[in-house]
Amino acid sequence: MAEPLFHRLALIGIGHIGASIALALRQRPGLAGRIVVCDANPAHLERARELGLGDEYIADPARAVEGADGVILCTPVGSFASLAQAIGPHLAPSCVLSDVGSTKRSVIRDVSPFVPEGVAFVPAHPMAGTEFSGPDAGLAHLFEGRWCLLTPPEGTDEAAMRKIEAFWQGLGARTVRMDPAHHDRVLAIVSHLPHLIAFIICGTADDLADETREEVLQFAASGFRDFTRIAASDPVMWRDVFLNNKDALLEMFSRFSEDAQAMARAVRWGDTEYIEDKIKRGRKIRQRLIDIKQA
Amino acid sequence: MAEPLFHRLALIGIGHIGASIALALRQRPGLAGRIVVCDANPAHLERARELGLGDEYIADPARAVEGADGVILCTPVGSFASLAQAIGPHLAPSCVLSDVGSTKRSVIRDVSPFVPEGVAFVPAHPMAGTEFSGPDAGLAHLFEGRWCLLTPPEGTDEAAMRKIEAFWQGLGARTVRMDPAHHDRVLAIVSHLPHLIAFIICGTADDLADETREEVLQFAASGFRDFTRIAASDPVMWRDVFLNNKDALLEMFSRFSEDAQAMARAVRWGDTEYIEDKIKRGRKIRQRLIDIKQA
Repeated sequence: MAEPLFHRLALIGIGHIGASIALALRQRPGLAGRIVVCDANPAHLERARELGLGDEYIADPARAVEGADGVILCTPVGSFASLAQAIGPHLAPSCVLSDVGSTKRSVIRDVSPFVPEGVAFVPAHPMAGTEFSGPDAGLAHLFEGRWCLLTPPEGTDEAAMRKIEAFWQGLGARTVRMDPAHHDRVLAIVSHLPHLIAFIICGTADDLADETREEVLQFAASGFRDFTRIAASDPVMWRDVFLNNKDALLEMFSRFSEDAQAMARAVRWGDTEYIEDKIKRGRKIRQRLIDIKQA
Repeated sequence: MAEPLFHRLALIGIGHIGASIALALRQRPGLAGRIVVCDANPAHLERARELGLGDEYIADPARAVEGADGVILCTPVGSFASLAQAIGPHLAPSCVLSDVGSTKRSVIRDVSPFVPEGVAFVPAHPMAGTEFSGPDAGLAHLFEGRWCLLTPPEGTDEAAMRKIEAFWQGLGARTVRMDPAHHDRVLAIVSHLPHLIAFIICGTADDLADETREEVLQFAASGFRDFTRIAASDPVMWRDVFLNNKDALLEMFSRFSEDAQAMARAVRWGDTEYIEDKIKRGRKIRQRLIDIKQA
């Protein structure tokens, strides 16, 4: 029988993404020999045990990583600095440390200082997820056909990178390597800003007078439904994403804000041509998404 | 055999909504005895004929409404003033005139002056639709379980209102009467503003440098995909909606814009509490939508 890619893999955090990795690994025994599930939340850890997501269940991350040749951080990115500090001294030599965070410059900044000599840190971001959260939200097929972006800092061990690539490809994802700063700008516009805007507009609706608010709900048209779907995602995860990709997010917000003001002005003054042009560009982007089968 | 609700029903405009009405009527022969399809676009009219959407196909609206006891305007709301002027003198006495426009104050302002004595005008707004357009986008089940809002001006004939209510209920919709100005405010927040924002953010993405833009497409995360879906809707229809619900839309935009600035400030200064609170409110609205089965 062939050796598994990781003999002992520790999943730190068993929410939507961690649970999805665990379920996917069950269907592909060649990737991880033994799965250690770790979560600081006792209810989540217990639920993971009930669902049979791992082989061992350990609340303390420092203990969970002991003897593991693979460790994947699956908690909100705001927890990474203290988490890395806690596990750093306990990482086995030749262990490969990775993560699934949506912001990569902050992750490198927060984790790298605590990575001991001999351990390779390979930051990764599987671009998949729904608006659901917690261990019950795991989906075995979540990563199939999706992108996983690797953002290794210069000098990252090539063998370790290949191992993480093989891991994600084994889960059905397509991998690509990318500069961390570039990753953060691309994600700011394709994901972080749209989520920020969705949260804002739901808040704006919530602020309306009571009578109107009820009707906002009763008559929620398809446009608003899509926004509330986006806005239903995990609060802590998104708070951490916004705060840890602040620069790129605020740059994209600022561009959006200028465009929004220009559009409002066009509506006020009846600038038909401007409005139509902007609408048509939205459609053009949509068409290209359909062409490359991302829609 | 019972009399149909309308003996001769003219659908002016055979796009997504007009075609959906036509298909739904085919399945419910009690609602319209004879369907007259009218469209100023010769290609759409020809396509409607190929699809068998009506019993007669007439390009000229003034001729199409002759002898009809029911007329429904299904063109973009920006066309209503000239359309009403053209058909007004040709409307049969005791005809019921209605529409499907997404803005109601403007529709009343534009149509009412041309409604002759003896004809009842009952503005209506079926809250249904997808991002697709044209006669091929008709869906027989589009209105089932959806709301249709009637916004009759004071003094509208009660029998005519009941006839339009029976028509939409016959197509599977739930009807409710509402003040036109109130309708426009509710729709501004649940539909018009979300669409405006979606168009803007797609334009912002399109404006990014060429290299980044390609990756915006390649790595389009689920958040952005939802935005492009909304933004794929018909340009002329939405341009007309924005321009004809200007006051309510700009009021909602202004509220949103203040909230957006406050959120950007919270991100810049790391105001965790503010960000989490806003995110949680978005989730709360989502939960209520699920509770009342609108999600």
